[in-house]
Amino acid sequence: MRIDGRNQDELRKLKITRGFTKYSKGSVLIEMGDTKVICTATVEEKVPAFLKGTGKGWVTAEYAMLPSSTQTRKNRDISRLRLDGRSTEIQRLIGRSLRSVMNLDVLGERTIWIDCDVIQADGGTRCASITGAFVALTDAVNAIDKETPFETYPISGMVSAISVGIGEEGPILDLNYAEDSTAMVDMNVIMNEKGEFIELQGTGEERPFTAKEMNALLTLASKGNEDLLAQVKEIMGEDLRRIL
Amino acid sequence: MRIDGRNQDELRKLKITRGFTKYSKGSVLIEMGDTKVICTATVEEKVPAFLKGTGKGWVTAEYAMLPSSTQTRKNRDISRLRLDGRSTEIQRLIGRSLRSVMNLDVLGERTIWIDCDVIQADGGTRCASITGAFVALTDAVNAIDKETPFETYPISGMVSAISVGIGEEGPILDLNYAEDSTAMVDMNVIMNEKGEFIELQGTGEERPFTAKEMNALLTLASKGNEDLLAQVKEIMGEDLRRIL
Amino acid sequence: MRIDGRNQDELRKLKITRGFTKYSKGSVLIEMGDTKVICTATVEEKVPAFLKGTGKGWVTAEYAMLPSSTQTRKNRDISRLRLDGRSTEIQRLIGRSLRSVMNLDVLGERTIWIDCDVIQADGGTRCASITGAFVALTDAVNAIDKETPFETYPISGMVSAISVGIGEEGPILDLNYAEDSTAMVDMNVIMNEKGEFIELQGTGEERPFTAKEMNALLTLASKGNEDLLAQVKEIMGEDLRRIL
Amino acid sequence: MRIDGRNQDELRKLKITRGFTKYSKGSVLIEMGDTKVICTATVEEKVPAFLKGTGKGWVTAEYAMLPSSTQTRKNRDISRLRLDGRSTEIQRLIGRSLRSVMNLDVLGERTIWIDCDVIQADGGTRCASITGAFVALTDAVNAIDKETPFETYPISGMVSAISVGIGEEGPILDLNYAEDSTAMVDMNVIMNEKGEFIELQGTGEERPFTAKEMNALLTLASKGNEDLLAQVKEIMGEDLRRIL
Amino acid sequence: MRIDGRNQDELRKLKITRGFTKYSKGSVLIEMGDTKVICTATVEEKVPAFLKGTGKGWVTAEYAMLPSSTQTRKNRDISRLRLDGRSTEIQRLIGRSLRSVMNLDVLGERTIWIDCDVIQADGGTRCASITGAFVALTDAVNAIDKETPFETYPISGMVSAISVGIGEEGPILDLNYAEDSTAMVDMNVIMNEKGEFIELQGTGEERPFTAKEMNALLTLASKGNEDLLAQVKEIMGEDLRRIL
Amino acid sequence: MRIDGRNQDELRKLKITRGFTKYSKGSVLIEMGDTKVICTATVEEKVPAFLKGTGKGWVTAEYAMLPSSTQTRKNRDISRLRLDGRSTEIQRLIGRSLRSVMNLDVLGERTIWIDCDVIQADGGTRCASITGAFVALTDAVNAIDKETPFETYPISGMVSAISVGIGEEGPILDLNYAEDSTAMVDMNVIMNEKGEFIELQGTGEERPFTAKEMNALLTLASKGNEDLLAQVKEIMGEDLRRIL
Repeated sequence: MRIDGRNQDELRKLKITRGFTKYSKGSVLIEMGDTKVICTATVEEKVPAFLKGTGKGWVTAEYAMLPSSTQTRKNRDISRLRLDGRSTEIQRLIGRSLRSVMNLDVLGERTIWIDCDVIQADGGTRCASITGAFVALTDAVNAIDKETPFETYPISGMVSAISVGIGEEGPILDLNYAEDSTAMVDMNVIMNEKGEFIELQGTGEERPFTAKEMNALLTLASKGNEDLLAQVKEIMGEDLRRIL
Repeated sequence: MRIDGRNQDELRKLKITRGFTKYSKGSVLIEMGDTKVICTATVEEKVPAFLKGTGKGWVTAEYAMLPSSTQTRKNRDISRLRLDGRSTEIQRLIGRSLRSVMNLDVLGERTIWIDCDVIQADGGTRCASITGAFVALTDAVNAIDKETPFETYPISGMVSAISVGIGEEGPILDLNYAEDSTAMVDMNVIMNEKGEFIELQGTGEERPFTAKEMNALLTLASKGNEDLLAQVKEIMGEDLRRIL
Repeated sequence: MRIDGRNQDELRKLKITRGFTKYSKGSVLIEMGDTKVICTATVEEKVPAFLKGTGKGWVTAEYAMLPSSTQTRKNRDISRLRLDGRSTEIQRLIGRSLRSVMNLDVLGERTIWIDCDVIQADGGTRCASITGAFVALTDAVNAIDKETPFETYPISGMVSAISVGIGEEGPILDLNYAEDSTAMVDMNVIMNEKGEFIELQGTGEERPFTAKEMNALLTLASKGNEDLLAQVKEIMGEDLRRIL
Repeated sequence: MRIDGRNQDELRKLKITRGFTKYSKGSVLIEMGDTKVICTATVEEKVPAFLKGTGKGWVTAEYAMLPSSTQTRKNRDISRLRLDGRSTEIQRLIGRSLRSVMNLDVLGERTIWIDCDVIQADGGTRCASITGAFVALTDAVNAIDKETPFETYPISGMVSAISVGIGEEGPILDLNYAEDSTAMVDMNVIMNEKGEFIELQGTGEERPFTAKEMNALLTLASKGNEDLLAQVKEIMGEDLRRIL
Repeated sequence: MRIDGRNQDELRKLKITRGFTKYSKGSVLIEMGDTKVICTATVEEKVPAFLKGTGKGWVTAEYAMLPSSTQTRKNRDISRLRLDGRSTEIQRLIGRSLRSVMNLDVLGERTIWIDCDVIQADGGTRCASITGAFVALTDAVNAIDKETPFETYPISGMVSAISVGIGEEGPILDLNYAEDSTAMVDMNVIMNEKGEFIELQGTGEERPFTAKEMNALLTLASKGNEDLLAQVKEIMGEDLRRIL
Repeated sequence: MRIDGRNQDELRKLKITRGFTKYSKGSVLIEMGDTKVICTATVEEKVPAFLKGTGKGWVTAEYAMLPSSTQTRKNRDISRLRLDGRSTEIQRLIGRSLRSVMNLDVLGERTIWIDCDVIQADGGTRCASITGAFVALTDAVNAIDKETPFETYPISGMVSAISVGIGEEGPILDLNYAEDSTAMVDMNVIMNEKGEFIELQGTGEERPFTAKEMNALLTLASKGNEDLLAQVKEIMGEDLRRIL
């Protein structure tokens, strides 16, 4: 039995509020249990220098935690004049994951900025960010498409992410902060709607893990992402028709 | 008649959600029309170097806008390695305003960090931040008081803030973004529940203003703050009894 | 009676040395009692990115204190890699105040850089900076005008600034450092030669102030600015003829 | 057949020069084909603030590329005032991997700094860094042990790392730069001498990958790390006796 | 004949104003022709970390140019977030030169901060800074000595600096900006009152120079420093008696 | 007799490995005794803003020490967000020295980046960097020349650098770290193959030095550079024919 009474393969309660703020073409508040992240997709009609004149677009992500989002107040990056190392790692992961389903040639010379701002962190913020960002990105692409329809639809698949880990009770799905702090192994698994892997990061800082354990974790993560995407499909309905 | 149909001396709809996030002793979502700011008060059991050993506490504020909170995406400070000049100005104002009602001797050697993070900016974010921060600060002080009661209550008065300006139609109260962009004069007025001034900043970048105009603006601001504090009293009820 | 024997409504001795250094088109050493600030206006034949191609010019200000200008040595901003918060606030105020009398369309695509470098700080440095910067700016504009006459003269009015505050002895004008440190309320008032307000910043960090007190302060500030501008007129003589 | 004539499961030529420079207790030049990294382990007799007084030690890593190590000159981090995002990610990975075999309680209140400086980058620099850093760390620990013997030996296992990827020709081991740039999927696998996983990072930015493909990659990586560790054992001989 | 009519071995007019500002124990405005530098010596009753507990003091220097001090406005270091390379070089030189005559053991655990702020730069600012800083340092040491007399006087000799160069007309002394820009070789020579060398920096970026030319430059510099120190002795009179 | 048994006028053993890494057109490992520096010359087909459109090229240098290159680990510049003052001074010196023999008009609109990265520092790193950088620069220029021959050869002379100092035993050549730490006077002398001076920096922080001592040092430095250049000629052979 887990701290919060869930089964080992049970997701926390998911809630997605679309249109959460009014200025971004895609704006989502995603909640996975007590983890809450604002994910927005903002369109800018220009590209970074290395893409200028290529006709290709870009998708890039930034991730940050509000100072009040954690148990102990987290100092702002600007007060240390450095981007937090963990944030760097996470925002690179978010960017790569979303670009993996994005046809940048079709997007055209524009940048979609993904901003994931954590307002309450109870474990799994990077995974919630990726899932939420996928919804915001799709909403933004649909908004562009409505104004000036794309010939080919630029998003080729769905993306979701979930964490798995090995706790005292064996492999568990979707760890909250308390579970995450005591897990021996933890892994973040980003997948698409076909059950394929987009990205995978596993860490055994507490102890190494065997191939057998990894298989168990991957099976659990596959189930978790499947459940998650089923809910996302339910929530987005018709707005996914160009992808599915 | 104003863009959104309000009277010249009419506030936008105020909504205050207390306990908005779970880790800070005070956590408030304040909404003034479409302006939305998360204001939190986090307690840290130490003080800056200049207060160490004095027995006195400190209240300090930080203000930031989420990149997606504005019409055009606002780059993060860390990406330019500098704190935005306007944010610097605003967070200094918030800190001064709250310290003006705070007895730092009574607080003891602890720091209360006020964080105001704007999630949607439709004019008047600095004023909403101050009003929201007052509520969060009071909630935090009450929470400390519950654990280890203060001999003397450290907060001596209420604080609220409202903007006034001179638009085409003359003096107006609580400007939204569209009004703010076209106002000839604008002023931010921070007051207490006795109708006294705590801080005042008036700017006539478009054109200078006369003493007569200033008096009209101050009268309007006084009325605005009075209305605002009446609502805050309604919302906080018994939690203000040690102040009033 | 005040510390230095002045009446409550008496300015400190003003001294303005024009042509203080040789490279800037406008270069002024302004002294208000023991407060000394070098104010220069340097012309650069280009504008910031956001004005390129608009035909409009720009006026911007930077303010800094020499490390040796204060009682305790002030570390340089570069040694902390951050612009001092107070300096940020002040230089934004100087810039706004001067732009309020400047016709940027007439100026043409050039930038006038105002640099205010405090060499001795005895209270009221921001006000001295504004008054001194007005003189330097006018000298620079006259120098440009001499080389290539403007069709319309770009400066529309005079600007001066003075501080007022409430000390033990009631409202006082032009506070020196000792007075400033003990004042309960202090206010900086920027005005033009018609007695209109350009900008106004009042702070009651020690205690709030009433509308009545504010009126007294504003009356005092109006008199102070009037006296100040009379002296500036005396000093600049014919060089103001295009403004007055 | 691969570009450089290797079999799909064949490592590049490994060369490890121990004692490469004279000041660090551990100093290694590791070469994997044309990839060359200087890995050093320097001992400092103090710990970061969060460990002071706990009796525990720390192992931390920094990774950087010389400007001349890449095909196009890489600007120094200091010239942009930011640590490169990729370097951040890599140095965090190196640190976690080495700490996973390190008993920090036994190490005592000292820090071992791992520095990985790439002098020539031809693919797989993060993996070469980890393997080289393990050798440098062991040399440094043995040097400490010689001066003041540890009661318990602080290193509990070996660490090595290898990249695998899916190229045109299917799964391949130890990708050089040319292969890495065209691989559809690539994965970095950090393992110990028992064939267990320490860390795992797989990315399918070009296209997602199936569970079956992942199994093939992991099998290949296991073989690669086994080959690699066999060579490291050969090179270090008796110096590993306390671990094996 | 030189541009400004001087002989080849003639110094520009020297003017030293002591007590230029009121807060620093030593405060000097030094003018060498049109070059003007404010040199101050401020005493702080603590030392850098590396000297804590050693009983030794420290002398350190900072050098900066006001933005308006040069023909083309010089951007502030803080606006680029980097200390100017040339300033770095110069302030290290000033610090070394003054420490060369300072007995840090006798000074005791205090730091003397030397600040050299150039208000008008017409060549030779680093040399003027060193000579002016020597005067400010001596004034500050004498001021400390007056309050709490040193057993041994901490300054062991005088320091002055002058530039020499090879122009069209051969070797010349004390180059102004116009001469400096066209000189083929230039050298800064720091000496003491015994005619010995403290520091020497010669650069032949335009063309290399021979041993014979160097001898001519050193002879000229020796004469220049002798003349300069004679004037400094005249100006400081009795205040040098503990040194001479 | 010196610590390492050398005569007072004897260089340490010089070793130059050309083609040390594969991506830069010039890449040299220079060893002077235990001092080891990687010097590379990388060609970039553009110039800094101030040279754009002039047809002229640029040569610039960067110098850094690996953290493990010194007895006590040296923190990376990026971890302090500032370029080390000593490195700033040295890289400016390297740049000036190489530009002194470079015809930038003939080079054309390209930049040659010189990178000097110290991997082991046993005294004299700035001198070794200059000598090594000269070789790397010449190799790079020859490589360009081979692809697209220059009409005029852009390098006009050889450059080498050596340190001299006054130790207990009198003037000594090419000081190692132990000697450097105890020398009373030390000087770095950059010369060309005609025995002329390019740059000269002498410091007497321990004690001032006389004209006579300086002559002795310069004579020693001339001999040292002559010996050094003889070895460089031997090593480079035919590759210097366009210069000599």
